[in-house]
Amino acid sequence: MSSLAPDIAARLKRTADGLVPAVVQQHDTREVLMLGWMDDEALHRTLTTGRATYWSRSRQEYWVKGETSGNVQWVKEVRLDCDGDTLLVAVDQEGAACHTGDRTCFDAVELPTRG
Amino acid sequence: MSSLAPDIAARLKRTADGLVPAVVQQHDTREVLMLGWMDDEALHRTLTTGRATYWSRSRQEYWVKGETSGNVQWVKEVRLDCDGDTLLVAVDQEGAACHTGDRTCFDAVELPTRG
Repeated sequence: MSSLAPDIAARLKRTADGLVPAVVQQHDTREVLMLGWMDDEALHRTLTTGRATYWSRSRQEYWVKGETSGNVQWVKEVRLDCDGDTLLVAVDQEGAACHTGDRTCFDAVELPTRG
Repeated sequence: MSSLAPDIAARLKRTADGLVPAVVQQHDTREVLMLGWMDDEALHRTLTTGRATYWSRSRQEYWVKGETSGNVQWVKEVRLDCDGDTLLVAVDQEGAACHTGDRTCFDAVELPTRG
C-alpha cells in the first residue's frame, strides 16, 4: 500500500507493471537528463523527501538517485501530463546524471536523420 | 517488417509491446513538450521523413504528429540513451504540442512537493 495522496493516485495512468515514466530535466538549463520509472510509492517519496526516487525495473527495488554515486537529484518541481501517464520532474542534478559519467543519458548516441 | 536500419534496431531495448518511449523537446527553448511511443517503423519514419511519427497505443495506429491538427513537429535531432531504451527527439513544434491546446502536455498540472 502506497502513501501517495489518493487524489494524486486517482489521476495516474500506469503501465501494466504499475509504473509511470518520469522525464527528468535540469531545472535551469532545461537539459533532459534521463528517463526513470516511478510507482505510486516512488512518486510519494519524490514528492515528500525532496530527492528523486525511482523504481528500478532491472533490480526490482526502490532507488534514491545518488544514494551510492553521490549524484543526487534535488527535486524542484513535479508535473503530470494531460493524460496522467507521464511525469516531468525538474531537479537540480549534482554531478553526472548518467551511470557512464556523462552529464545526461542522451549525450553519447545521436541517430542519423534526413536533415 | 520495419525498414529501420539493422544497426539501430539492434541497439533498441523495447517494452513487451515492442515500443520505446520518446521524450519530445523543443530544440531551442528546451521545453519538454510531450512523451510519445515509437516502434521500429515509427522511428524509421521519424528519422527519414523529418516529421515526428509515433505509435498510438490507444488507437493502435501510426500517427504523424500534426497530420490532423496542423501542429507539426519538424525533427531536428534524435538521440538514444545509454541503455537503448529511451529516445530524445528535438523538434521544431508548430503551434501547440498538446491536444488540449496547451503549448506542452505538462502545462496544466503541478503536483505538490515538499519545497
